[in-house]
Amino acid sequence: MSDYPQAIIRLTEMLSQLPGIGRRTAERLAVAMLDWDAPELQALGEQIRSLLDNVHICSICGNLADADTCSICNDDARDQTTICVVENARQVPVIEKSNRYRGLYHVLGGRLAPLDGVDIEDLNVQSLRDRIAALNVTEVIIATSPDVEGEATASFLAEDLRSDFPVTVSRIALGVPVGSDLTYADSATMAMALDSRRRL
Amino acid sequence: MSDYPQAIIRLTEMLSQLPGIGRRTAERLAVAMLDWDAPELQALGEQIRSLLDNVHICSICGNLADADTCSICNDDARDQTTICVVENARQVPVIEKSNRYRGLYHVLGGRLAPLDGVDIEDLNVQSLRDRIAALNVTEVIIATSPDVEGEATASFLAEDLRSDFPVTVSRIALGVPVGSDLTYADSATMAMALDSRRRL
Repeated sequence: MSDYPQAIIRLTEMLSQLPGIGRRTAERLAVAMLDWDAPELQALGEQIRSLLDNVHICSICGNLADADTCSICNDDARDQTTICVVENARQVPVIEKSNRYRGLYHVLGGRLAPLDGVDIEDLNVQSLRDRIAALNVTEVIIATSPDVEGEATASFLAEDLRSDFPVTVSRIALGVPVGSDLTYADSATMAMALDSRRRL
Repeated sequence: MSDYPQAIIRLTEMLSQLPGIGRRTAERLAVAMLDWDAPELQALGEQIRSLLDNVHICSICGNLADADTCSICNDDARDQTTICVVENARQVPVIEKSNRYRGLYHVLGGRLAPLDGVDIEDLNVQSLRDRIAALNVTEVIIATSPDVEGEATASFLAEDLRSDFPVTVSRIALGVPVGSDLTYADSATMAMALDSRRRL
């Protein structure tokens, strides 16, 4: 049986390493690129080749950045007294897109997972403590994921920070998602939504 | 509102030009590439940059090829007396994967579309005629798509070839797809399946 040229097969194999891209989709994308003209392919290839050179990690908060520090840390208009703690940098745009937060961020770089060998020293906690002290932060919002390890990380941080700083530690609300059908809410989420009900 | 670094945004824009890749998927892919290490990104970027240099068009049949001629034209074990005519090179692997065809191919490079200015001189018909004459081809299977323009192209070719060569011209069968639920067959396909019924 004949197949595509080797260059297409290799590109297909590479693209299928991406999450959510199966072999068939990867093949479709590789073949679709044949319709692009040479300058477009050069530009895409160059962009991918140089990706890690052009994406930096903010030396202050750990967010993705264009340069040594990120656009949020560089923005004096952001509220310097509030820090939102996230597990990784991909979660910053998720919170930004909500248009509800104007403070700073701090990227932990993971979450407590003792079974996987991730202890507190592996997370960016000391730099968080340094920032809280330096900036006179009044509130730390913990936005780790609402799963077992994320909750454990949140509990640890809350206790750790409260014991050493005069700071309010808060947690994002857990409950039924906006716009969802209550029929399909899972019982753990429903229980949390009831426990955290608020007076109207 | 802050967003991803420029390098991610540019990569997202480029990837979203691919068919079936919306903005959200493109962003997810671009961010996922941050997890790749530098050599992997270099290899993918290089593969894309050089794609058009490494994919050739077979000078005999028009199929995609690793070199000047494709693996099918180079394969003496293929039946040299049968040519399957397809609209474009992406359809060759579709037929190959059926494991039912051992002859040669001929890529038309399009189909008749007078309204779009595609006439018979724009298709690789003369080279098909030359091959039929040179190879003493006994059967030409026309595997253009079963839509209006594909059918018109098939009809034209059948008449054109039959009038000049002692050759059997056949058309792939049109009918209900294998494994499909008859409940959802469209009426045009159902009509074709009835018209083309065969005795058991």
